[in-house]
Amino acid sequence: MIIVMKAGTPEAEIDKLSQELTTNWGLTPEKIVGRHKVVIGLVGDTVYLDPLQLREMSSWIEEVLRVERPYKRASLEYRQGEPSEVLVSTPAGNVPIGLHHPLTIVAGPCSVENEEMIVETAMRVKAAGAQFLRGGAYKPRTSPYAFQGHGESALGLLAAARKASGLGIITEVMDAADLDAIEEVADVIQIGARNMQNFSLLKKVGARNKPVLLKRGMSATIEEWLMAAEYILAAGNPDVILCERGIRAFDRQYARNTLDLSAIPVLRGLTHLPIMIDPSHGTGWAEYVPSMAMAAIAAGTDSLMIEVHPNPKKALSDGPQSLTPDQFDKLMGELAVIGKVMNRWPKPVPVLA
Amino acid sequence: MIIVMKAGTPEAEIDKLSQELTTNWGLTPEKIVGRHKVVIGLVGDTVYLDPLQLREMSSWIEEVLRVERPYKRASLEYRQGEPSEVLVSTPAGNVPIGLHHPLTIVAGPCSVENEEMIVETAMRVKAAGAQFLRGGAYKPRTSPYAFQGHGESALGLLAAARKASGLGIITEVMDAADLDAIEEVADVIQIGARNMQNFSLLKKVGARNKPVLLKRGMSATIEEWLMAAEYILAAGNPDVILCERGIRAFDRQYARNTLDLSAIPVLRGLTHLPIMIDPSHGTGWAEYVPSMAMAAIAAGTDSLMIEVHPNPKKALSDGPQSLTPDQFDKLMGELAVIGKVMNRWPKPVPVLA
Amino acid sequence: MIIVMKAGTPEAEIDKLSQELTTNWGLTPEKIVGRHKVVIGLVGDTVYLDPLQLREMSSWIEEVLRVERPYKRASLEYRQGEPSEVLVSTPAGNVPIGLHHPLTIVAGPCSVENEEMIVETAMRVKAAGAQFLRGGAYKPRTSPYAFQGHGESALGLLAAARKASGLGIITEVMDAADLDAIEEVADVIQIGARNMQNFSLLKKVGARNKPVLLKRGMSATIEEWLMAAEYILAAGNPDVILCERGIRAFDRQYARNTLDLSAIPVLRGLTHLPIMIDPSHGTGWAEYVPSMAMAAIAAGTDSLMIEVHPNPKKALSDGPQSLTPDQFDKLMGELAVIGKVMNRWPKPVPVLA
Amino acid sequence: MIIVMKAGTPEAEIDKLSQELTTNWGLTPEKIVGRHKVVIGLVGDTVYLDPLQLREMSSWIEEVLRVERPYKRASLEYRQGEPSEVLVSTPAGNVPIGLHHPLTIVAGPCSVENEEMIVETAMRVKAAGAQFLRGGAYKPRTSPYAFQGHGESALGLLAAARKASGLGIITEVMDAADLDAIEEVADVIQIGARNMQNFSLLKKVGARNKPVLLKRGMSATIEEWLMAAEYILAAGNPDVILCERGIRAFDRQYARNTLDLSAIPVLRGLTHLPIMIDPSHGTGWAEYVPSMAMAAIAAGTDSLMIEVHPNPKKALSDGPQSLTPDQFDKLMGELAVIGKVMNRWPKPVPVLA
Repeated sequence: MIIVMKAGTPEAEIDKLSQELTTNWGLTPEKIVGRHKVVIGLVGDTVYLDPLQLREMSSWIEEVLRVERPYKRASLEYRQGEPSEVLVSTPAGNVPIGLHHPLTIVAGPCSVENEEMIVETAMRVKAAGAQFLRGGAYKPRTSPYAFQGHGESALGLLAAARKASGLGIITEVMDAADLDAIEEVADVIQIGARNMQNFSLLKKVGARNKPVLLKRGMSATIEEWLMAAEYILAAGNPDVILCERGIRAFDRQYARNTLDLSAIPVLRGLTHLPIMIDPSHGTGWAEYVPSMAMAAIAAGTDSLMIEVHPNPKKALSDGPQSLTPDQFDKLMGELAVIGKVMNRWPKPVPVLA
Repeated sequence: MIIVMKAGTPEAEIDKLSQELTTNWGLTPEKIVGRHKVVIGLVGDTVYLDPLQLREMSSWIEEVLRVERPYKRASLEYRQGEPSEVLVSTPAGNVPIGLHHPLTIVAGPCSVENEEMIVETAMRVKAAGAQFLRGGAYKPRTSPYAFQGHGESALGLLAAARKASGLGIITEVMDAADLDAIEEVADVIQIGARNMQNFSLLKKVGARNKPVLLKRGMSATIEEWLMAAEYILAAGNPDVILCERGIRAFDRQYARNTLDLSAIPVLRGLTHLPIMIDPSHGTGWAEYVPSMAMAAIAAGTDSLMIEVHPNPKKALSDGPQSLTPDQFDKLMGELAVIGKVMNRWPKPVPVLA
Repeated sequence: MIIVMKAGTPEAEIDKLSQELTTNWGLTPEKIVGRHKVVIGLVGDTVYLDPLQLREMSSWIEEVLRVERPYKRASLEYRQGEPSEVLVSTPAGNVPIGLHHPLTIVAGPCSVENEEMIVETAMRVKAAGAQFLRGGAYKPRTSPYAFQGHGESALGLLAAARKASGLGIITEVMDAADLDAIEEVADVIQIGARNMQNFSLLKKVGARNKPVLLKRGMSATIEEWLMAAEYILAAGNPDVILCERGIRAFDRQYARNTLDLSAIPVLRGLTHLPIMIDPSHGTGWAEYVPSMAMAAIAAGTDSLMIEVHPNPKKALSDGPQSLTPDQFDKLMGELAVIGKVMNRWPKPVPVLA
Repeated sequence: MIIVMKAGTPEAEIDKLSQELTTNWGLTPEKIVGRHKVVIGLVGDTVYLDPLQLREMSSWIEEVLRVERPYKRASLEYRQGEPSEVLVSTPAGNVPIGLHHPLTIVAGPCSVENEEMIVETAMRVKAAGAQFLRGGAYKPRTSPYAFQGHGESALGLLAAARKASGLGIITEVMDAADLDAIEEVADVIQIGARNMQNFSLLKKVGARNKPVLLKRGMSATIEEWLMAAEYILAAGNPDVILCERGIRAFDRQYARNTLDLSAIPVLRGLTHLPIMIDPSHGTGWAEYVPSMAMAAIAAGTDSLMIEVHPNPKKALSDGPQSLTPDQFDKLMGELAVIGKVMNRWPKPVPVLA
């Protein structure tokens, strides 16, 4: 953090300010005196400081400028530039997600509707090459009158699908009270976009040791998103995957959100955490999913989350953005072409006899 | 809801679709046949329908258009065009908030720091004319390393300030587990912008009978905001106040948020619920607060929420956007001028001897 | 501008950089040496510098931070904190627009349709208290098939209305080739939102000596807007009025734009230029205009631009956001109440016998 | 267009409205009578209609809904679903740009600085596989004090580079007065993002017969962009290429714009026009360009525009987002891998002996 003092600031004011920074804020202010201006560099753990707060300390302050990042455990520097992997234990063994591993594919319906549909979907996406099944038991819906998910009973259906398919399970938590039940079936716990800054919930999943999939809030800056991840990391859980799912911009006439694929190279330069892209929510329409999934792989994502439903026309939620299993099969074939030339496509897993 | 069929849709397809709408969706489809096209009007409670879902029902559907509003209890029609009031019980008696009442002024610090500061602030804002004290015990902060509020102990301090001043108390809930403790001291429970779509929490405050202040999410559309209110209303709690606090736009260099004052006339045409404006969060800087508070009154707000701190330079949070008690005194004088000509300024309350 | 060097930057690198800043960029670099870091302050006319460019000069540079404003003639400092006024010569005498003067009211239709309607509108808005008539001869329309304005012939009709009413005329230029013809009738030349960064056009109106009304671009930051004004000022024309007309945010379902009233206090702290607010384009619907016009006055605007059409239902453009003359009469009565308590309402002009 | 009448609308009102639609608007209204409501379908060329205008016609109108697209010549239907190609004549022969052709690569500096740099850049990007050289003679700059381009003299340098390299030339027009001079050297005329709704300029390039590259405005919706293309097409010039270059969202801390790659599949469903992606402006930083260029090819773009400068540190504009020729060579190698598996990579051109 750098404090720029106005030209002509009295020496006494600078001393008083330096004193206060030392005593009240635990910092080592480093005075750098120029011909016209004095600049105070702050040495110490500035991650805990708020530039806005500092600026109020004296009316002689011209500007307070943050040079360092406001997050720490999420930063690339925290691991000396080395990407981290999240190792997820699934019925089929440990699946690593991260830059030095093949692409991880997550697929499944928006919500778990009944046993038949979830097991069928699981078997189909597994056969097509997915490693994880997604499916919501608790659904955040804009309207209180829309289908809210089958709740706890859906968790049992996910368990059945997990057992039948051997896929890992990713499902969303909306209420901390459901965490115990969710943990019994989920291999990865999802925090949805609307709860990205539900700090109570972040702290609670941070206190568990299940991997967490943290979706980006609809209007969250990259920095706010990393700060949300920092909440989980700081609470003790090191296994966070960042999932971009479309941001809110000014045009929602065609694509319902704006999928920010530049988040991939931006995050690579800032954080060690693995990256997932969700082109289904990211665009809102099934017809746009294939080209955005292709693009995500070419841009270097570590994983993809794609909505698949056995009968999108009858889906209780998000039908318009779901692929059918047949469309998903076809897409996986196309993704494999790009994935292979990017050296990120999974080798075929030997089937257990 | 209106379904426009493509030109040339076979009669049989329309019959099949009508059948399905009746059987599976409980609607009365009304076929309106033109020379080139058929349009199906849907009679019934379309508030529970998703146009996106309907569109998937047949490939002969050209467009599904929602004509009605997707909320019901929050709509102006629900009360036949009559604005509602929220009557809040406070130590000084019942305070009504709504269009047919004088302006309600809420003031106080971002967070409760200690007994002296909160009691002092309460006495000062009360003397200046406020009816409510705001103050956070639980604080949603972007950084996990920033001051998170004093939590439960701060609730005790709010109780002390309430007793000393007679002001009503508004404080934020971040975790449903704290609701019991908060209810003991709060006269109005606040849902913060970041939790506007924390649907679990909305349902839980909806099941209580304390009035709820629902802040608009940073990128929430007017409709999403009213749908969030609908969650509370549908859960049985009729006392919801809508608070605009700045939306996120593309320019945050000066004002940190964009205060959307046009929400006032827009909401008036859509909902009966009372309206509050928060120019402190809405702009992020104390120097912009007075003119935006003036504007809010002129635009017809029912209440204002303004941050006041005895010493903003030392505030543990949101110092830059807080007024000093002296600045607040001065502002109240200016607001009174506008409030009076708008016929919304409170009559002086006779002081108890 | 401040250049922060990375810790451990070799002395030679700093010397080389300083040399380059002096020789190639004409600056006086001021080295300020701290214990860990060196910071280089740049003295000189940094208004001409691009921080992005500087950052490329050495890989040892950690950050380049702009402290000063990138505009100069538009800045409040340029006039030592004193607001400027724009004095417009009209048939009824000179009308000053600015902070130390009564509110200026501009009213009239979106486009000039025929002589009768423009003269009638002029007489009505004049009678209601307006000083200027707005009306488009050349119309920027999203669709090439929409009415594009009557062009040059409409200028003649504006001249007739000017003569009949004594009002000043404000009309938009879309093409520099029309400037001569426009100058003959217009007292203020308008640059529309879509042309705010049409730099060729800005230079050309900057070379004339008619006052210019510069509308804010739909997604222009405050700084970009002031830089656009700087183009006109730098070209020699000191008479620029800034007009906020709604920015583009994520929700256009009800208000069609988001009127950014906080621009008023923000601009007051940055620039000496007079401010106008256009609540008609700013909201897009006539029903929202009155409360936003009230708010604009309370927030301290210097002038208002309001669309008025004798028969909005038949308007060739922008009907939905136009008031009828009767509605405008009523609104002026309401505005007077606020205007008077703000000490900004014009004294009644003695009518010539 | 569909007009929904309120329940209970008198028969006479519907007749009056129908009459008016026929007489004044030249439409064939088709009344479709249901049990509760009447809906009026409008048959005719509704591309010329404004739904807002229609809504004002009667207070019995509940809603006016546009079903058709407001553009015509730009629509996919206009060519019966067949993508168009733009055939550009260059010194090396005709280069077709479009879906059924190999990727077209445009590369070069932001602005033309001197003969040596532009010729050198041309030779390097040509050697790496580009078909077009970009380079600005007239530069739209936020600040009037920034380098504005060398203007007409730079056109001569582009001609030299064209001759030396055989590359086609793409350069921007900012002022219609420069069109003649630009046409002499440019093979494609560029309309910049800031001029996307400079309708005068659109009409003028529409009246010429050079291909036009139309960049998307920073906050232009897809529909507004296509309407801007429609201006050019309606003026008689059929050769328009649409270039996405990053939109303005709420986070500019890292990527300076948000590259909207979903525009690719969205445009494919709406228009026959060829698509170009500019990842340099789209992200603002050279380090993000490669992954976004890769993604654009995988998403199906027809062409790419990439900034290349022989010495970005010394560039007079846009240095931070420019690749060096060496970086561009390396990138082209990477792009070829994706381009080939997408079947869009150009076959090597036989070198003339």
